Amino acid sequence: MPEGDMAKPLLGRQNVESNASLIAATGNTTVGILGSGDFARSLSMRLVCSGFKVVIGSRNPKRNATLFPSAAEVTFQADAIKKTDIIFVAVFREHYTTLCDLSDELSGKILVDVSNNDEINHHKESNAEYLASLFPSCTVVKGFNVISAWTLQSGPRDGNKQVFICSNNQEAKRAIAEIAHMLGFTPVDMGSLCSAREIENIPLRLLPAWKIPVFLALGLFLCFYTYNFIRQVLHPYIREQKNKFYKIPVEVVNTTLPCVAYVMLSLVYLPGVLAAIFQLYRCTKYRRFPDWLDQWLQHRKQIGLLSFFCAALHAVYSLCLPMRRSHRYSLLRDAVSQVEKKTDPWVEEEVWRMEMYISFGIMALGLLSLLAITSLPSISNSLNWREFSFIQSSLGFVALVISTLHTLTYGWTRAFDESQYKFYLPPTFTLTLLVPCSVILAKLFFQLPCMNQRLRRIRNGWERGRYVKFTLPRASGEFSSGETSSTV
Amino acid sequence: MPEGDMAKPLLGRQNVESNASLIAATGNTTVGILGSGDFARSLSMRLVCSGFKVVIGSRNPKRNATLFPSAAEVTFQADAIKKTDIIFVAVFREHYTTLCDLSDELSGKILVDVSNNDEINHHKESNAEYLASLFPSCTVVKGFNVISAWTLQSGPRDGNKQVFICSNNQEAKRAIAEIAHMLGFTPVDMGSLCSAREIENIPLRLLPAWKIPVFLALGLFLCFYTYNFIRQVLHPYIREQKNKFYKIPVEVVNTTLPCVAYVMLSLVYLPGVLAAIFQLYRCTKYRRFPDWLDQWLQHRKQIGLLSFFCAALHAVYSLCLPMRRSHRYSLLRDAVSQVEKKTDPWVEEEVWRMEMYISFGIMALGLLSLLAITSLPSISNSLNWREFSFIQSSLGFVALVISTLHTLTYGWTRAFDESQYKFYLPPTFTLTLLVPCSVILAKLFFQLPCMNQRLRRIRNGWERGRYVKFTLPRASGEFSSGETSSTV
Amino acid sequence: MPEGDMAKPLLGRQNVESNASLIAATGNTTVGILGSGDFARSLSMRLVCSGFKVVIGSRNPKRNATLFPSAAEVTFQADAIKKTDIIFVAVFREHYTTLCDLSDELSGKILVDVSNNDEINHHKESNAEYLASLFPSCTVVKGFNVISAWTLQSGPRDGNKQVFICSNNQEAKRAIAEIAHMLGFTPVDMGSLCSAREIENIPLRLLPAWKIPVFLALGLFLCFYTYNFIRQVLHPYIREQKNKFYKIPVEVVNTTLPCVAYVMLSLVYLPGVLAAIFQLYRCTKYRRFPDWLDQWLQHRKQIGLLSFFCAALHAVYSLCLPMRRSHRYSLLRDAVSQVEKKTDPWVEEEVWRMEMYISFGIMALGLLSLLAITSLPSISNSLNWREFSFIQSSLGFVALVISTLHTLTYGWTRAFDESQYKFYLPPTFTLTLLVPCSVILAKLFFQLPCMNQRLRRIRNGWERGRYVKFTLPRASGEFSSGETSSTV
Repeated sequence: MPEGDMAKPLLGRQNVESNASLIAATGNTTVGILGSGDFARSLSMRLVCSGFKVVIGSRNPKRNATLFPSAAEVTFQADAIKKTDIIFVAVFREHYTTLCDLSDELSGKILVDVSNNDEINHHKESNAEYLASLFPSCTVVKGFNVISAWTLQSGPRDGNKQVFICSNNQEAKRAIAEIAHMLGFTPVDMGSLCSAREIENIPLRLLPAWKIPVFLALGLFLCFYTYNFIRQVLHPYIREQKNKFYKIPVEVVNTTLPCVAYVMLSLVYLPGVLAAIFQLYRCTKYRRFPDWLDQWLQHRKQIGLLSFFCAALHAVYSLCLPMRRSHRYSLLRDAVSQVEKKTDPWVEEEVWRMEMYISFGIMALGLLSLLAITSLPSISNSLNWREFSFIQSSLGFVALVISTLHTLTYGWTRAFDESQYKFYLPPTFTLTLLVPCSVILAKLFFQLPCMNQRLRRIRNGWERGRYVKFTLPRASGEFSSGETSSTV
Repeated sequence: MPEGDMAKPLLGRQNVESNASLIAATGNTTVGILGSGDFARSLSMRLVCSGFKVVIGSRNPKRNATLFPSAAEVTFQADAIKKTDIIFVAVFREHYTTLCDLSDELSGKILVDVSNNDEINHHKESNAEYLASLFPSCTVVKGFNVISAWTLQSGPRDGNKQVFICSNNQEAKRAIAEIAHMLGFTPVDMGSLCSAREIENIPLRLLPAWKIPVFLALGLFLCFYTYNFIRQVLHPYIREQKNKFYKIPVEVVNTTLPCVAYVMLSLVYLPGVLAAIFQLYRCTKYRRFPDWLDQWLQHRKQIGLLSFFCAALHAVYSLCLPMRRSHRYSLLRDAVSQVEKKTDPWVEEEVWRMEMYISFGIMALGLLSLLAITSLPSISNSLNWREFSFIQSSLGFVALVISTLHTLTYGWTRAFDESQYKFYLPPTFTLTLLVPCSVILAKLFFQLPCMNQRLRRIRNGWERGRYVKFTLPRASGEFSSGETSSTV
Repeated sequence: MPEGDMAKPLLGRQNVESNASLIAATGNTTVGILGSGDFARSLSMRLVCSGFKVVIGSRNPKRNATLFPSAAEVTFQADAIKKTDIIFVAVFREHYTTLCDLSDELSGKILVDVSNNDEINHHKESNAEYLASLFPSCTVVKGFNVISAWTLQSGPRDGNKQVFICSNNQEAKRAIAEIAHMLGFTPVDMGSLCSAREIENIPLRLLPAWKIPVFLALGLFLCFYTYNFIRQVLHPYIREQKNKFYKIPVEVVNTTLPCVAYVMLSLVYLPGVLAAIFQLYRCTKYRRFPDWLDQWLQHRKQIGLLSFFCAALHAVYSLCLPMRRSHRYSLLRDAVSQVEKKTDPWVEEEVWRMEMYISFGIMALGLLSLLAITSLPSISNSLNWREFSFIQSSLGFVALVISTLHTLTYGWTRAFDESQYKFYLPPTFTLTLLVPCSVILAKLFFQLPCMNQRLRRIRNGWERGRYVKFTLPRASGEFSSGETSSTV
């Protein structure tokens, strides 16, 4: 997340004076660029459009002049450096050393390192720190690497307006932040130059928050799929020589998906229960949770969305069932045998069981889709804390309860039917019930008046040791109004 | 909505000087905090990160010092107050009186009330006004209460960046707005201190815009469910002793949901028709609509989304029908009787009826899902007025027409079939047709050239009385270019 | 898109001084408005709320005074003009000439043209240029026309905060930009007054990016529908006198939709393949693509979303199939004939074929829905370039491959079955395979090591001619770090 603890908007109004020394009046500020690649060209175009004077330093100004906007001056590198104090180094890391000849001219200037790497933590030190080590007399600022040449050309959009900036020199950082601001971006201060590695890794990230949840879902899918395959396909083949292999693509998948969705949904609410247990046990909310629990609490949104995705797929698979040839053929078989038997096919219990679990299933899916929709950034941002927690926490818990009813009515009495235990393996639905039912029972337990009161006191800041010492009414007056912020 | 008529961004550039007196240069500004709860800690952390000097006033500085960032100074309350002009009061309302001993030290300072209540309108006067009455020599500013300790720590996100601020003193308000701005929030001026109650109620809101539409939907659902229950379950049981109770969870719900969805959809377009009638009757657009109509017009989005939700659920229920045991059993029964009868089961009329109403149903659902998607904040914000009204108004009306065709083809000739009148109750679909058909007819009526022209003149600002007086061509020249803004 | 090449935020801090001359301190700035329509009223209200002094110029101040906020002064036009330097002309274009009497008073003032037209390019010259030609002694600024009276009243929201401004006078433009900023809008500089036509056309746009993709989809739909109608309905009627007309509303549509969805999906990836071929052939990435290819590349998102919409509709139609009467009747017919035949209806090959193509279909739909969700502005803005391209490009290509498998398993051996060639027309699925299979083969071809390397070199900036001249290692050092920006 770009907004870490340390991230703060760089440009308060207090900077006006300090910038004034570096960027007197924009119309007169000259910015230099070394390099003539895509990024150099797009940057020069944007700088010119925003009213800066731009000087391009090139080894071959004549040949490259046509690549740049005509308002930009293209000249030799040494010449360009002399004309400005701020120089964007739009050159690959491998070629930084080619600039060493210009050390003397560069001395005292601000160098902006805009480079990226191909891999995360590719080099021992970040590109910016490497540049700083090559030119110790320069001030190096890392920035603009998260912006692509494409974004520079087409203008910044809503979410990726942020330009992360770091440097050991506050003045230089402010000057670059000011330029970012004038180009229409939002500069974000990331501290000193040692953050450069972190900044260089940002454009290389590939959905880091999704990695654990996706692997969790895949792992659960594999386990349940194997289990269901053994019960639904292998068992009839080995015991009764029946060929049920046609169930592999649809039916086994469709008994696996709801298991994954259901267990994942309970895993969204389990860490909250564990956190409450930790708080009750420790009698304070001020000690940090163990790292694994912190991680888990932060991945709840992704786990919940994957649960919804599996539930939605389960719905589509289920709806496809009557469309299949196998369904038609088995129906025809039934019809033929029915005609021979001449009994009424209607079994009231089976009818009720199915009507009920279908209706619970639809309700759960409806609620989960509401949760998924309110997870969209543009919607969750428009909710206050109370609204968000009502939907995500209360409605989500109701969805878990209804999913449990869906599972229970689906199972009906099968858990107690010996013929359902293939190879002594219990029916799959009984396995999935373990975690969700524990979560539901724990949540109900915390609702007991005594537990609930204790938990609320702890979350309002009460601690055992301190409570004993400060029983005066005034003491509790110091606790904050930020109750709405409890994250559990 | 945070952007009411009075809401305006507080920080124009003109404030630079006036703030300068209070917040000379951020690096040197000292801000005080009374309290040591979550909010106090998170606030101190954020202030320190943004370059402020922070002094914490505590009754027990030694014990509490470890709770705050080391850059913040933790000292006794009286001592802290002396060192700063701006003091955040992070203390519960119940304990405001404990600060009365410090009245003298607090005199002349700016107190920022950040407190919240547990219930809407819990106390007679707002917390901020109560604080102001306790410390008449201080300037009280209400603000920051909508921000949770969690948001302070993790940094502001897109939608909940707003900090609502009110005070009777402009200078103090601007100073606090400037601080909010520097912490990365967007200050919003809410006027004088009497708005404090409103600001304190903001974090307690629970989806206020949804309350009426949700109750409306539930009410309609209950009415139609009872009606359908009587017709589909009770009637066969009483008259023919047939047990159809299995229809309760799925089939009765599935005949109820489309009724709700269809009536709700027509209720989205009915207020527009009523508004047009008002305007035609009054011959002006400058008189306000009655309150109930205004309310209704503002809830159209929510009513429409609930209509879509019901329609989507109806689709899922319908698709589940052939999956059920009851469907299978009734099919087997039919097959057995078919074999005995030896006639061709094919009924061309029934086939056509169903193919047509299914296809109309899918079309209506497809259009409604387009409407729902363009209601997402991030999409509706990227549309200009003409695009938004084309989709929401024109396509939405087409969806209403197609839904009507869906209902009519579903009903076919049943309205004229006496056997359909159970207990003399007409088929449900005939009841639902009333409102939508009136809306469609009214809309078509307004499309008649004479009506259309009159309505457009009124919406361009024409009034009967004035028209008579000012028939000069110049008079109409004063009407605005803001035609696109007509909200009906 | 509002953020074109030229669009840049107008308000850098450097403007403070220059504005200072025009807008000394907001509290004292007087703004004039000519006109008394909706827009004039809403604008006056917002200006007053933001601390401006407002003077309304009216031909009949007494009558109109009640229409404006009481803080605004309503007086005669000439009188109003004298009191201010900035005048909003909230008058229809047709009535600009009525202001000619005031030429002398208006001389030297800034006129803000806020007008809109009813049609795109309605008049030869833009309204603003027409106003400028009428009052050569005034400075005309175009702006605020994209803002509706409604938005002025209810406050700006996220996406439509932008106010496009153009003028031949920089000072005047900055002054108006400053006012826009103070009213809570985001001013965007569109250059000189000749951009006024473009600005006036903005509110008249109706989803321009969707026009071509929608017509493309409709065209494909019509072609495939006719083709399928001939094969599925006309052929059995003419050759076998069978009445299959009931297939028109659902079944023919449902064989047409997947064709459209599948071909559209391949058209999303075809332009990328063509662009790569162009680059390989020209051995450079610096020559522009032909216009049609550029257009195509820019419409990929819309084409992809329409493909998803068709695929989703296809899914719903397919799921509806077993619900229909025709399905039930044909099943009963089969049951009767089955009872007579007394053979097992089960055909293993048909079972496998259908299980497989259903399962491929669900997978493809699942992937496409992920693509559609990440196309939502609020989500795509929160992804970095690598994440966006992983989902849209890699996952999208996987979706195309799975769709191809869906089509192939659906077709099975039918392409080689003579009885499938109705009127010598091949089965529809064979026609749809052409484009997608070429795209997949081309993509695989570009993955060959030799091609892949060449293509990557070209996209890093390598050119044939230059490569020969500059084989020094230093030369390549000039290419940029902006590789992530390659758009193909």
